[in-house]
Amino acid sequence: MILEILDAMERGEITKEEAAQRIARQPFEQHIIGRFDQNRKLRTGVPEVILAEGKDPAAVRAIYEDYLSRGEQLIASRVTAPVWAALEDLGDKLIHWEKARVVATKAPEPDPKRSTVLVISAGALDTPVAEEAAVMSELFGNPTERLYDVGVAGISRIAVELGRLDRAGILIICAGMDGVLPSLVAGLALQPVIAVPTDVGYGSAFQGVAPLLTMLNSCAPGVAVMNIGNGFGAAVHATKINRLLTRTEPA
Amino acid sequence: MILEILDAMERGEITKEEAAQRIARQPFEQHIIGRFDQNRKLRTGVPEVILAEGKDPAAVRAIYEDYLSRGEQLIASRVTAPVWAALEDLGDKLIHWEKARVVATKAPEPDPKRSTVLVISAGALDTPVAEEAAVMSELFGNPTERLYDVGVAGISRIAVELGRLDRAGILIICAGMDGVLPSLVAGLALQPVIAVPTDVGYGSAFQGVAPLLTMLNSCAPGVAVMNIGNGFGAAVHATKINRLLTRTEPA
Amino acid sequence: MILEILDAMERGEITKEEAAQRIARQPFEQHIIGRFDQNRKLRTGVPEVILAEGKDPAAVRAIYEDYLSRGEQLIASRVTAPVWAALEDLGDKLIHWEKARVVATKAPEPDPKRSTVLVISAGALDTPVAEEAAVMSELFGNPTERLYDVGVAGISRIAVELGRLDRAGILIICAGMDGVLPSLVAGLALQPVIAVPTDVGYGSAFQGVAPLLTMLNSCAPGVAVMNIGNGFGAAVHATKINRLLTRTEPA
Amino acid sequence: MILEILDAMERGEITKEEAAQRIARQPFEQHIIGRFDQNRKLRTGVPEVILAEGKDPAAVRAIYEDYLSRGEQLIASRVTAPVWAALEDLGDKLIHWEKARVVATKAPEPDPKRSTVLVISAGALDTPVAEEAAVMSELFGNPTERLYDVGVAGISRIAVELGRLDRAGILIICAGMDGVLPSLVAGLALQPVIAVPTDVGYGSAFQGVAPLLTMLNSCAPGVAVMNIGNGFGAAVHATKINRLLTRTEPA
Amino acid sequence: MILEILDAMERGEITKEEAAQRIARQPFEQHIIGRFDQNRKLRTGVPEVILAEGKDPAAVRAIYEDYLSRGEQLIASRVTAPVWAALEDLGDKLIHWEKARVVATKAPEPDPKRSTVLVISAGALDTPVAEEAAVMSELFGNPTERLYDVGVAGISRIAVELGRLDRAGILIICAGMDGVLPSLVAGLALQPVIAVPTDVGYGSAFQGVAPLLTMLNSCAPGVAVMNIGNGFGAAVHATKINRLLTRTEPA
Amino acid sequence: MILEILDAMERGEITKEEAAQRIARQPFEQHIIGRFDQNRKLRTGVPEVILAEGKDPAAVRAIYEDYLSRGEQLIASRVTAPVWAALEDLGDKLIHWEKARVVATKAPEPDPKRSTVLVISAGALDTPVAEEAAVMSELFGNPTERLYDVGVAGISRIAVELGRLDRAGILIICAGMDGVLPSLVAGLALQPVIAVPTDVGYGSAFQGVAPLLTMLNSCAPGVAVMNIGNGFGAAVHATKINRLLTRTEPA
Amino acid sequence: MILEILDAMERGEITKEEAAQRIARQPFEQHIIGRFDQNRKLRTGVPEVILAEGKDPAAVRAIYEDYLSRGEQLIASRVTAPVWAALEDLGDKLIHWEKARVVATKAPEPDPKRSTVLVISAGALDTPVAEEAAVMSELFGNPTERLYDVGVAGISRIAVELGRLDRAGILIICAGMDGVLPSLVAGLALQPVIAVPTDVGYGSAFQGVAPLLTMLNSCAPGVAVMNIGNGFGAAVHATKINRLLTRTEPA
Amino acid sequence: MILEILDAMERGEITKEEAAQRIARQPFEQHIIGRFDQNRKLRTGVPEVILAEGKDPAAVRAIYEDYLSRGEQLIASRVTAPVWAALEDLGDKLIHWEKARVVATKAPEPDPKRSTVLVISAGALDTPVAEEAAVMSELFGNPTERLYDVGVAGISRIAVELGRLDRAGILIICAGMDGVLPSLVAGLALQPVIAVPTDVGYGSAFQGVAPLLTMLNSCAPGVAVMNIGNGFGAAVHATKINRLLTRTEPA
Repeated sequence: MILEILDAMERGEITKEEAAQRIARQPFEQHIIGRFDQNRKLRTGVPEVILAEGKDPAAVRAIYEDYLSRGEQLIASRVTAPVWAALEDLGDKLIHWEKARVVATKAPEPDPKRSTVLVISAGALDTPVAEEAAVMSELFGNPTERLYDVGVAGISRIAVELGRLDRAGILIICAGMDGVLPSLVAGLALQPVIAVPTDVGYGSAFQGVAPLLTMLNSCAPGVAVMNIGNGFGAAVHATKINRLLTRTEPA
Repeated sequence: MILEILDAMERGEITKEEAAQRIARQPFEQHIIGRFDQNRKLRTGVPEVILAEGKDPAAVRAIYEDYLSRGEQLIASRVTAPVWAALEDLGDKLIHWEKARVVATKAPEPDPKRSTVLVISAGALDTPVAEEAAVMSELFGNPTERLYDVGVAGISRIAVELGRLDRAGILIICAGMDGVLPSLVAGLALQPVIAVPTDVGYGSAFQGVAPLLTMLNSCAPGVAVMNIGNGFGAAVHATKINRLLTRTEPA
Repeated sequence: MILEILDAMERGEITKEEAAQRIARQPFEQHIIGRFDQNRKLRTGVPEVILAEGKDPAAVRAIYEDYLSRGEQLIASRVTAPVWAALEDLGDKLIHWEKARVVATKAPEPDPKRSTVLVISAGALDTPVAEEAAVMSELFGNPTERLYDVGVAGISRIAVELGRLDRAGILIICAGMDGVLPSLVAGLALQPVIAVPTDVGYGSAFQGVAPLLTMLNSCAPGVAVMNIGNGFGAAVHATKINRLLTRTEPA
Repeated sequence: MILEILDAMERGEITKEEAAQRIARQPFEQHIIGRFDQNRKLRTGVPEVILAEGKDPAAVRAIYEDYLSRGEQLIASRVTAPVWAALEDLGDKLIHWEKARVVATKAPEPDPKRSTVLVISAGALDTPVAEEAAVMSELFGNPTERLYDVGVAGISRIAVELGRLDRAGILIICAGMDGVLPSLVAGLALQPVIAVPTDVGYGSAFQGVAPLLTMLNSCAPGVAVMNIGNGFGAAVHATKINRLLTRTEPA
Repeated sequence: MILEILDAMERGEITKEEAAQRIARQPFEQHIIGRFDQNRKLRTGVPEVILAEGKDPAAVRAIYEDYLSRGEQLIASRVTAPVWAALEDLGDKLIHWEKARVVATKAPEPDPKRSTVLVISAGALDTPVAEEAAVMSELFGNPTERLYDVGVAGISRIAVELGRLDRAGILIICAGMDGVLPSLVAGLALQPVIAVPTDVGYGSAFQGVAPLLTMLNSCAPGVAVMNIGNGFGAAVHATKINRLLTRTEPA
Repeated sequence: MILEILDAMERGEITKEEAAQRIARQPFEQHIIGRFDQNRKLRTGVPEVILAEGKDPAAVRAIYEDYLSRGEQLIASRVTAPVWAALEDLGDKLIHWEKARVVATKAPEPDPKRSTVLVISAGALDTPVAEEAAVMSELFGNPTERLYDVGVAGISRIAVELGRLDRAGILIICAGMDGVLPSLVAGLALQPVIAVPTDVGYGSAFQGVAPLLTMLNSCAPGVAVMNIGNGFGAAVHATKINRLLTRTEPA
Repeated sequence: MILEILDAMERGEITKEEAAQRIARQPFEQHIIGRFDQNRKLRTGVPEVILAEGKDPAAVRAIYEDYLSRGEQLIASRVTAPVWAALEDLGDKLIHWEKARVVATKAPEPDPKRSTVLVISAGALDTPVAEEAAVMSELFGNPTERLYDVGVAGISRIAVELGRLDRAGILIICAGMDGVLPSLVAGLALQPVIAVPTDVGYGSAFQGVAPLLTMLNSCAPGVAVMNIGNGFGAAVHATKINRLLTRTEPA
Repeated sequence: MILEILDAMERGEITKEEAAQRIARQPFEQHIIGRFDQNRKLRTGVPEVILAEGKDPAAVRAIYEDYLSRGEQLIASRVTAPVWAALEDLGDKLIHWEKARVVATKAPEPDPKRSTVLVISAGALDTPVAEEAAVMSELFGNPTERLYDVGVAGISRIAVELGRLDRAGILIICAGMDGVLPSLVAGLALQPVIAVPTDVGYGSAFQGVAPLLTMLNSCAPGVAVMNIGNGFGAAVHATKINRLLTRTEPA
């Protein structure tokens, strides 16, 4: 861009002062803005993810109509019932993962060069968070598998699925209550473990604080922790790891 | 006791009014005091357990001299360095478990009719709490074994010690950091599990709050939780269970 | 199982390599899975307990229809109104404890060889938690009695019921607000005390945190604490103690 | 005072403007300052109570020398070792309650017309707080008695001391750990109960938060709670109640 | 009672053994039960106060019908809309303070020999708690006055009402948000101050924790603190103080 | 700067590509770096403020020697005893405010065109924080006054100092315990109030959390709150307000 | 006022005693009341701001009818749906900012002599708090601008709006989640920064506690923090700063 | 292993029963133990990491002498002064990173096929945690760079170091106080970001809780959070990511 301006100046189309002025107006656009805009695209592999919960349903619909008209991908997380009610008659143009509370304009296209993201959940009540992680992971281009309901009561299922753990590249583990599953799996597997506490549990689980603390204090070192219920964040971290695997420039 | 008073009244040694007054003064002695005094003995199998920490060392020594002169058992917990300094020259008459910070006037006498208490710890830093539980358990008359340092890094040792778990009657499990060991063991063993959080760990372990919450929220149901660092309480609960096993009256 | 495979190998029905492969596939099933499955049965005396709250009512009904068709026991805790609505027309085949929010396919069958579990509550508002503990205790095979509404205002009732305390083997005590009842009873009784805080109370009870802390810090040592509102866990711990009493192998 | 100014104005000693200005400057002195100064005296029965802890020992000594030279009462609370070291050679002119960490220039003079303040403590480690309450209560002019070490382990002593409870007018109860003593006593006695949590206890006592919450949530209604360790505040509240008893004007 | 039994024994109506047995059965009734029952009456001046919130409305109505038929006083606090709906058609026989959420079968009868309880509130939103305190105080027999909405914005009203403060005997002060009013008033008045935090305020008021802490830490010493929203407790403490004023036996 | 590069390019001293590269490297320097560097100077009126606490004393001394050799101002906050020990022999070249724990190479030069900052403290123990605010305020060029020890016990002093409050432009108020002073003063004064909680107080002050919450919830609206003990931050905010008063460009 | 009384006394219309009595009755009115009443007006530039949330809608309407009949300004914050329903038919006489939840009887009249208040928000969900701040700021007479939705995802917009930041006099910044925006902007701008945390975010944002702590701990010194969601308080603090700029008396 | 046993059985060296017994004893060794042991090696690239803090210095020395004699790598974290004192005379055989508090028997050998780990810190006081992360990262075989002291005050240094950020593969960011640096960097960079809160800061930083919450709530999605001060954990997670990059089997 600067070169173009200097070219125009060399060609005499603009004066030196005009060139200086144009250049002076650009740096943020080039460096900061450009970086952020490019960043967001690369970061998620999609143009935009919006948090639907708490937003005006009509406003969310308007954004969706805009993106549909331009044929671009738009992902919404935490799509509550009232938001979906406003979107429902666009339903054949949208994809709606109800459990995951996610809506998108385009289907996932997994990139086979990436390693597989395996999303594990401890109990049936952790499914919404696990599904948010899994659907987002797919929408961000990662081959994604699910291994649900393998908490303490179902730990034998982990034992018989050790092969799947070994074949996976990245593990996202969602658990409420005591939140011990990530500690246990991180002791059994070599892959990066991303732990997501959920707000499942009785009184002293404190809406997810108990599993959050368990995960932060994991005896198995290296467990990476996300906010309570933040399946989306786990999917982004997994995607960043996968992007590292496939980047061509030297690291 | 009431009969004795009525006898004395019949014999004319005391008036009816005096009898009434004496009787009126007794119910608490009979019911409340008696119950508490009898209770304390039965509860611990020893006349007295005192918390030494924070007490005046000279005062603790004075109590010990008194009990030694009467030849009775006296147990002190949390015996800090200054307290032990005041007791040290009585040392040949006292038994001192340094790791456990426990002092007693008499050696343990395990009752073979009771079931074995197995004290398990997750890591080396949990040993003081585990030892407090184990020594107290022995002093209260329980056959007691130890299985230490079997947290996530040492979980394979649990695997090879499953036989000891199966033979034990009651499990006391001490763990800091993420506190997952009781959840894990309670999934592998049928015995009553008593969990003791310790204050071992980094920042967000919050001096034992993290493992305390993990244990309270254990997915494996029925884990009984003690206060942070309260190995003594775990030994008392185990002793109460064992006492139930050996009581002769119908339950 | 291994012997059967070796027999088959000896009989020439399978090759040595096939035998090695079959054996290699089994260890988890034999050791881990077997242990967990056997464990769950022994632990509760029933095939399965599910947490109904938060689950899809239709899914809960489907599980119940399956268990009914197989004639097996299935227990659900925290049965909320919408879940019960989905189950209601199966009502003559199910047993519903409304206060306890528990549903089962089979009636309790108390084992007279076990000691009695006495469930005590402090106030009328603690009843749902106390009932969960009591009904679960019965369903797990324990002779179970109730002594409700004996908090500070009703402490005189404890005084007149000391006989029942003495005859019981295990005490489960449910209390909200200041949560002092377990401390008080543990001072009066020799039995193992299992304390369950409830979320009853004004502002600074913090939905059960105040009684939880009171119970964890009980001056009467050896009180075993459960999570806030976790009557189910108390019943499991009591059942494990009772199972210890009746096991035939040496402890 | 206003009349004196008007007199001076009438006598021509000051102008009307000067009179207005002087009057305008006084209301705070008359109303606010006067009230606060008079208040402090009446409130405590002594001219001044200072918190010694954290203050410069030399500065505390200077204040004491000043008060001694004027023959006035000066009370210091939380007199730490370094502060006392600076005061020690004034020792024959000062009264030092070591356990209570209180120093005063004059001895207590209890007012027999007031009702007795009975200070109760749960355990030996609660004594410093209980003594602060008791000594302050005496210094503020209340007949004061002590009943120490009557927590759960010593509850029988309460039973035999019911007479002393009944004769007392106001009860101050100091307890750490589970803090149940005020709940229990408030159920047995009709007097106003002032509860003071102490920071005695294991991990989850959280330096007094556990007994503080227990006391705030007391099932026995009407327990008045002070800050953790604030024996001084309890003595002031008791003194205010006693002052109400002896005021002559209609209430 | 004991004397009666001894009389019967002297008259030969019962044997000595029967006398001993009868006496042995009584102590708790005489000492503990009697004390608690007598206590409850004296404590509140009414036979019974029940917490209606959370209770089954039909059950509350049944209790009211019982008390009405016996012509006895029954007070309910926290009467929520559904509870009142169940009571409403008994309305002409009941007194309902809607703001205070209190219902009673009998009108208050203030005892003129007691000192006046002045209930002060900081803001309009604190009124429900203040009214609970005021109505309860009246129902417990205390002359009671109100001074509402005098927080920082209305502090000038306190200035003009200093006379009412001075005439009152006991001050109950209800405040949310920063909870500074009790500190301020305790600096201006000599009476016992009972502070009640309310759950009024923005985010970091934490449903009353902020004013609770302010009150516990009051610079003006001697402020007695109640649980968040516990106007009932404040009224009980005030009543206990007033009872002390009017008791005839020596204190 | 861009023009200089274009000039050099026009003069043929650098190629067009070199010009583009140089320009591309500059925007951050021009916009971000320049802004931050200029900002820091303007923000505090001094080149640098460093937090000494926790830093290596020798390293702090080295920085001071460097600034002294260049004759520039350098301010250090939280100068602990070991840090000062390392600086002490530079003492005649440094100014040390011991109470405030501040060291500087140059004396304050108040700017008379600014409004006065009045630093108010509640009690003697709040002085270190108040002095940090006051000395920093002076070093940042603000005319600064002090009004200390005017908490509830000394509130009459506020009354007689209303004139000083009125003459001040900005009020910084430091208080621990209940932290009510800012609420009170903000009700009496029109100036911007900056509140600084201190960690002074008993147990439930929680090292400053209680006054922090009080200040955040102030009923007198518009109180600006700083972190616990952050007198430095208060001085910076006051300086920013004063800078606004004296800036010449239109606002 | 005092002079008038002295005049009347000089004229013989009242006696000296009557003059003294009248004067004695006034001081609070003159000093405290007058100060508070004058204060409130000056503080906000409007006669009254009421918090509508939680108040009886009919009562709010009654106040509005009163102020409308007197033609005076009345502002209500937190106008919930039920409150607005009660006011709606007065709608043509009232101004309603729906997003800001503010209602007023008179339109804002910005004072051009004041500096501009720039209200910045991080995300769309922070708008209600930001709008409360902005509308209140306008109603209090400040020229006010908005710069919304410039959090991390939109940080490039801050870069291109640096000019607006520089022209503003005071910055109010509203942010939830991690609350980093005030730290970032305070590093880029010289103006006083007022930070308002919002309750936007996932689990561990704890309804605004996370951004509150971030803002209190800002590395960029001098950030002034308001309570969670307290846009009104931010507007008051900004107005107090602006008032300082325009006061004519010496500071 | 199984085949060897079967061979021995075929050769008649052991009976079929002995074969079955030997096989039965192996599964845990094969599956669980083997996995854990293999795991620990692969996970860290070194045989063992021990937490020295809190351990008996003599015991740590004994382990080091053992590893040195066997010529194996042994890493210790949190090497406090007393531990180092016990190791010091082994100093020429050990490598000691004092700032990082790390000791090892062998020097790091970075694997050039891995991507670079860039460790970033906000301020000088965060260095110990950052160094622990950096030294551990090197010891685990990762090419590791450092970029320290680039918090808000030094943010311009980030601007000029964007190239280093872009070349790095994984970013570990250590920050205390407000903890905003990870949010900011995650908005500027595409790499996986691992955030480590430190306990640096004033009162309301709560020993690292404030930056912990900031990081968990980061607006820039995908930030992976470690426990407070857990530089070791960050290095392990980074190593696991790098291991994924270099594994040869299909993912």
